[in-house]
Amino acid sequence: MFSQIYHFMPTISLRGQACPPSPIRKLVPYSDEAKLKGITVYHLNIGQPDIETPANVLEKIRNTDLKVIEYSHSAGILSYRKKLAEYYLQAGISVTPDQMIVTTGGSEGILFTMLACLNPGDEVIIPEPFYANYNGFAVAAGVVVKPIPSYIDDGFALPPISAFEEAITPKTKAILLCNPNNPTGYLYSREELEFLRDIVKKHDLYFFVDEVYREFCYDGHQHHSVMNLEGIDQNVVLLDSISKRYSACGVRIGVMISKNKEIIATALKFAQARLSPPTFGQIAGEEAVNTPESYLVNVLEEYVRRRDIVVESINRMDGCYCPNPGGAFYAVARLPVDDSDKFCQWLLEEFSYEGQTVMFAPATGFYSTPGRGKDEVRISYVLNVSDLKKAMKCLEEGLKVYPGRKKS
Amino acid sequence: MFSQIYHFMPTISLRGQACPPSPIRKLVPYSDEAKLKGITVYHLNIGQPDIETPANVLEKIRNTDLKVIEYSHSAGILSYRKKLAEYYLQAGISVTPDQMIVTTGGSEGILFTMLACLNPGDEVIIPEPFYANYNGFAVAAGVVVKPIPSYIDDGFALPPISAFEEAITPKTKAILLCNPNNPTGYLYSREELEFLRDIVKKHDLYFFVDEVYREFCYDGHQHHSVMNLEGIDQNVVLLDSISKRYSACGVRIGVMISKNKEIIATALKFAQARLSPPTFGQIAGEEAVNTPESYLVNVLEEYVRRRDIVVESINRMDGCYCPNPGGAFYAVARLPVDDSDKFCQWLLEEFSYEGQTVMFAPATGFYSTPGRGKDEVRISYVLNVSDLKKAMKCLEEGLKVYPGRKKS
Repeated sequence: MFSQIYHFMPTISLRGQACPPSPIRKLVPYSDEAKLKGITVYHLNIGQPDIETPANVLEKIRNTDLKVIEYSHSAGILSYRKKLAEYYLQAGISVTPDQMIVTTGGSEGILFTMLACLNPGDEVIIPEPFYANYNGFAVAAGVVVKPIPSYIDDGFALPPISAFEEAITPKTKAILLCNPNNPTGYLYSREELEFLRDIVKKHDLYFFVDEVYREFCYDGHQHHSVMNLEGIDQNVVLLDSISKRYSACGVRIGVMISKNKEIIATALKFAQARLSPPTFGQIAGEEAVNTPESYLVNVLEEYVRRRDIVVESINRMDGCYCPNPGGAFYAVARLPVDDSDKFCQWLLEEFSYEGQTVMFAPATGFYSTPGRGKDEVRISYVLNVSDLKKAMKCLEEGLKVYPGRKKS
Repeated sequence: MFSQIYHFMPTISLRGQACPPSPIRKLVPYSDEAKLKGITVYHLNIGQPDIETPANVLEKIRNTDLKVIEYSHSAGILSYRKKLAEYYLQAGISVTPDQMIVTTGGSEGILFTMLACLNPGDEVIIPEPFYANYNGFAVAAGVVVKPIPSYIDDGFALPPISAFEEAITPKTKAILLCNPNNPTGYLYSREELEFLRDIVKKHDLYFFVDEVYREFCYDGHQHHSVMNLEGIDQNVVLLDSISKRYSACGVRIGVMISKNKEIIATALKFAQARLSPPTFGQIAGEEAVNTPESYLVNVLEEYVRRRDIVVESINRMDGCYCPNPGGAFYAVARLPVDDSDKFCQWLLEEFSYEGQTVMFAPATGFYSTPGRGKDEVRISYVLNVSDLKKAMKCLEEGLKVYPGRKKS
């Protein structure tokens, strides 16, 4: 279209065209419109918690006495990496500062990992639904995502080993898992991880595990880190971030960890090209490790209350189903709608209940297989109990009048 | 080697192997060693100024009253983009907030630009020597750098048009320029930019210009922005950063700007995948636009003093030559040495003068053509006058005793 108007304009890239828009953010123009009309929008579309960042972290930033805001080491400030090693030790994970590269959010860690480990055209197996932004990094790195299905009626448990075996081709080079899972909230068991360990060993694969939600495990369940699986040290990259743990998404600080020296040395070259991760974020991160334990205890209690409201509310609604997530702060719910993209947009564009509406992320964007997720939405239960109840009421009332409602 | 030890380890990527180490940072282990021996190392290898960040910026960070450090808009906080539009207007550049994506340093802007505009295998022409880290982004994006030579004896002026014409192939999709130039300090004239404009138009190319050092122009010379070249609005991407302007490298805040809506919309998809640029950096950036004009006036005077010391010192040394740079805070000097990599390493590993030595970046890493830059180093004149004089003394004394010194 543009090329008809402008004679001298080259076209944008094929991968740029291939990169899907974020299902988490693509409806933002509609929520902006709704707000302009005076409607209150409850944002359950994005994992942006309303939980306060720990006071000691905020205080630390206010007390910085830097004169020059300098570049740091490309792998991150050494004192921060040492502090991180302490944090991991407390979490039962033994790693050293030279096995880490501090990244600009968990996002950059995923990109560096793909760039260092995978060639363009290589395949990475991911159980779907999966965190939609993995697509963006895969497109950037020229890596092919091979989804294998998990199902809402199984609570999104790990697909059977046979599904992995069937998906493996000569181009398969890695498995990527998010544990606890975004978007499903599923917490993988030790047995499931050991199944994966065996596949990884058998087929000489890399195993990338995003443990950003490590602390968010409910109902007494334990988190099992990939770093503690025996016999695959050289295959594993742990991806992590402080965004959710300390409700500090804006600091953009994550870390990639591997005991494989070649991976770290290679990723470091890409890290050096971008110079360093953000200084203030690293200062925040170093202090965050000192956060009193009571902070996280309170946060977890709060998230359990929120989860319970969402799960119970939805399961009470006619034709709806939401499995009970064991971790993270997301749930995927099945709704009696023709098309979750249309429904989510309709909630913003055409619906309001007592001057309010709710925003979800359509689940379609979390699936790679076309057609899957059309009657599902991802719900981030990141708002306080009172707002969440109002948001659930909006959903309930919306479903009553949505023109594309499916008959049960 | 590793695969002999570990039976189940896949190999790292070919591009990971292809990514060159940063010439700016690869000798850091040797400078660390020298420091352990008690030697003072003058760091002229990296563009990390010792200039203080403006007081108003530091104060703004100390006074933040955030309760939750949230994600921002993926394109950057709107109030910051509006403020940036004010800054550009003052600099004679007319752009709107929706033509910008705030990036994590200038680095991320280069990567997003390549991802959005270029396909793997596409060629980008860059006059060499060029900022070495472009290599890392090109490798990450699968883009092929086609260098065309500029020469120290011409002061690193723009290569003749014929050199561009000869380098253009059916795969050529873009020209990338840094103005004023890192590593040479060369400030491109209006005529040179207009030559490039004509080539860009004639061959339907993109034109990416890194103007990070826009303010650093000396001897009364004017900077000419690519945004003010007529007739190629749809081809141009401006890449910028606040790192150098306000001596705030650690905030990791840059921006990519284009009037081509498709480029911005496409880059935004990659930006959404990584969620947002750092919050504190954006707060710093917004305040930085309010920095009193006197700050930059003083900084420029200081850099001119520093440049003069470096250029005059080196040109007084036997067998050495350093052109007088018109901008930025770098110079490339020719030294009577067999191999600048060896020489720079030797200065750290084996040499000291009165307990001091100096660290440069070997120029070889700034050239793509094998063999070029072997008798050149990049000098960042980022230290105060007193330290710079001592560093130049170290160079002078080092050259006297360096075993690989070339006979004149």
